[in-house]
Amino acid sequence: MSSPIDIAIVGATGTVGTALVEILEERDFPIGQLHLLARAASAGKSISFRGRNLRVRTVEAFDFAQVRLVFFAASEAVTCQYAPQARAAGCALIDLSGGLPLQQAPRVVAEVNSQVLQGLAAPFQLTSPASPAIALALVLAPLRPLMHWQRLSVTACLPVSSLGREGVAELARQTSELLNGRPVEPRLFDRQIAFNLLGRVGAIDAVGHARLERRLAEELRQVLALPELKVAASCVMAPVFFGDSLSLVVQAVQAIDLPAVQAVLEQAPGVELIEPDDCPTVVGDALGQDVAYVGRLRGGMDDARELNLWIASDNVRKGSALNAVQLAELLIKQGL
Amino acid sequence: MSSPIDIAIVGATGTVGTALVEILEERDFPIGQLHLLARAASAGKSISFRGRNLRVRTVEAFDFAQVRLVFFAASEAVTCQYAPQARAAGCALIDLSGGLPLQQAPRVVAEVNSQVLQGLAAPFQLTSPASPAIALALVLAPLRPLMHWQRLSVTACLPVSSLGREGVAELARQTSELLNGRPVEPRLFDRQIAFNLLGRVGAIDAVGHARLERRLAEELRQVLALPELKVAASCVMAPVFFGDSLSLVVQAVQAIDLPAVQAVLEQAPGVELIEPDDCPTVVGDALGQDVAYVGRLRGGMDDARELNLWIASDNVRKGSALNAVQLAELLIKQGL
Ligand SMILES: NC(=O)c1ccc[n+]([C@@H]2O[C@H](COP(=O)([O-])OP(=O)(O)OC[C@H]3O[C@@H](n4cnc5c(N)ncnc54)[C@H](OP(=O)(O)O)[C@@H]3O)[C@@H](O)[C@H]2O)c1
Ligand SMILES: NC(=O)c1ccc[n+]([C@@H]2O[C@H](COP(=O)([O-])OP(=O)(O)OC[C@H]3O[C@@H](n4cnc5c(N)ncnc54)[C@H](OP(=O)(O)O)[C@@H]3O)[C@@H](O)[C@H]2O)c1
Repeated sequence: MSSPIDIAIVGATGTVGTALVEILEERDFPIGQLHLLARAASAGKSISFRGRNLRVRTVEAFDFAQVRLVFFAASEAVTCQYAPQARAAGCALIDLSGGLPLQQAPRVVAEVNSQVLQGLAAPFQLTSPASPAIALALVLAPLRPLMHWQRLSVTACLPVSSLGREGVAELARQTSELLNGRPVEPRLFDRQIAFNLLGRVGAIDAVGHARLERRLAEELRQVLALPELKVAASCVMAPVFFGDSLSLVVQAVQAIDLPAVQAVLEQAPGVELIEPDDCPTVVGDALGQDVAYVGRLRGGMDDARELNLWIASDNVRKGSALNAVQLAELLIKQGL
Repeated sequence: MSSPIDIAIVGATGTVGTALVEILEERDFPIGQLHLLARAASAGKSISFRGRNLRVRTVEAFDFAQVRLVFFAASEAVTCQYAPQARAAGCALIDLSGGLPLQQAPRVVAEVNSQVLQGLAAPFQLTSPASPAIALALVLAPLRPLMHWQRLSVTACLPVSSLGREGVAELARQTSELLNGRPVEPRLFDRQIAFNLLGRVGAIDAVGHARLERRLAEELRQVLALPELKVAASCVMAPVFFGDSLSLVVQAVQAIDLPAVQAVLEQAPGVELIEPDDCPTVVGDALGQDVAYVGRLRGGMDDARELNLWIASDNVRKGSALNAVQLAELLIKQGL
């Protein structure tokens, strides 16, 4: 359909970068040249794409004028360091790190607020939100016409892979040490993560909120176009390798029409609603899937204006790489 | 101080029963004869108590007239089956299973609502609440004078030991199968629990609430003596062996005075408050301790009437056996 475009992925060797390469291949994305970029340590490795082995190169030496679109899938700092070069070279830019301000690179969930793109002019800059924000937005957006919200309270249990490869390696190491009867010295986390839950993810600010909790609230407000929405968010690190598990309480102004909520979620794009007597989990349901799974849909125990539900979603796929590729597809339609 | 009394523990070989025996020994409880009861399968085993090995006997054959106090630490069904015999024999009764109605056996947390005992006459019947309800009550009770609550929202991440020995064995089995590269067939749970989170614990009712979620709300209302308190509760099963981890949002009617909350929690009995930049966890902090650990105390991100916090508490110790023994100590003072 559209003429192939040349693309670079910064952080191509990571958890998210690897998924990006896979999804670009799966979805037959119209790519000319694909440039895989990482640190010098990974330069020379090769990654398979459409039957060819592509060499990883260092981002330092890369000339962004060679490509029209860049995915930033390394850290926030790396995004901030190289985004100016990419912009100067006229590239469109899709950030997965959250390193760019909301005003500069709006948060977009493909199924929810793609209309944002209409207001943008080249060079395009978009951000794929944090994975729990994507899952929440997919579930909440279709409910907006049904109710007026007072507030959301979410407890987001995140997998170690939300910290990338090192998180995965650390949980595996600790678990196997413990099962072999050896004491565990935590490295990546300040406490044991195996068979434990950490009530804090990342640094917290002067009033006690984690950066990710703030980001979640801000991104939800932007994606749902509800700037006044009140959000209570708690992020927890769980001894789970992959997949976000979210416990959500929605408080509405009026009594909630549960059958209507159910009917809307059954039709909602990017969402799979599970019967109320079952409950989806990340392992066995959500992992590897392109939708967020919703279960345990129920009212309040003592309040007709309350809605409770549970979401299981693949943090690497739907929660980052897939949404980023969907954003790229939208940019192409927009004439990237 | 008081004359020794004869005691029976129904379910003495279980997770909670074993902890009961330990704590009775640690606290120098004034015991005459201690009778350890379980199923026929465990009869003949022996358990050490104050340097002697006590034989486990079957509950079926037991004559409750031999004792003055019975701890029920088997299932709800076992409590319902044998409580009438114990009552008929004039025993005082402390239930840890939740099998008896609230009206018959009031829920008591020693530090919180021991005044309930004043209104009771022999034969005494008390219930030690579900472990997350105990931890929540310890933290919330001292805050009552500071604020008027609109509602609580709690996500309770429970360990597999909240299902007893079988839960512990199942998580250990699944984890080691997976680390050895073998596929896992879930047995006790309907899905893999290793490296996964289950958004449903136990059976749910016709409108989608788990029995334990209802119990939590009801017990909190009774223990805090706030019959109108609105509670949203979600119980989650986590791949953790021991310890409850609770994420709590409190909504008050007026703006919250955080320094006052902090000052009160620093003094509160049964509670250990951790500095805001740290966060307590079950492994490494709460396990084996007699207090509930509180951390991440903070206001709302966008609402001055909101309070957020995290609790880590030992489900077997403070969350059941210790509180039950404290209740027995109170009964003795009451002239059991
Ligand atoms: N994991 C998730 O669930 C998730 C979800 C949404 C968004 N994100 C975001 O996506 C980004 C990547 O996360 P990840 O989970 O894929 O992390 P990861 O597995 O640790 O991978 C990090 C990637 O960044 C590269 N990198 C690190 N420092 C670099 C530098 N100075 N210059 C160039 N490349 C550098 C690494 O290359 P080397 O191989 O050379 O080290 C690697 O490719 C993060 O910003 C993260 O917050 C992650
Ligand atoms: N684990 C927790 O975190 C926790 C916290 C608060 C309250 N509770 C409650 O405490 C109770 C015990 O839990 P647990 O975790 O200790 O369970 P557990 O480890 O599975 O132990 C169960 C105990 O009950 C006994 N039992 C089972 N069926 C019996 C029967 N028909 N007659 C007599 N005894 C019988 C078992 O004896 P055998 O050895 O003969 O099988 C064993 O001693 C439950 O009601 C639970 O809900 C548990």
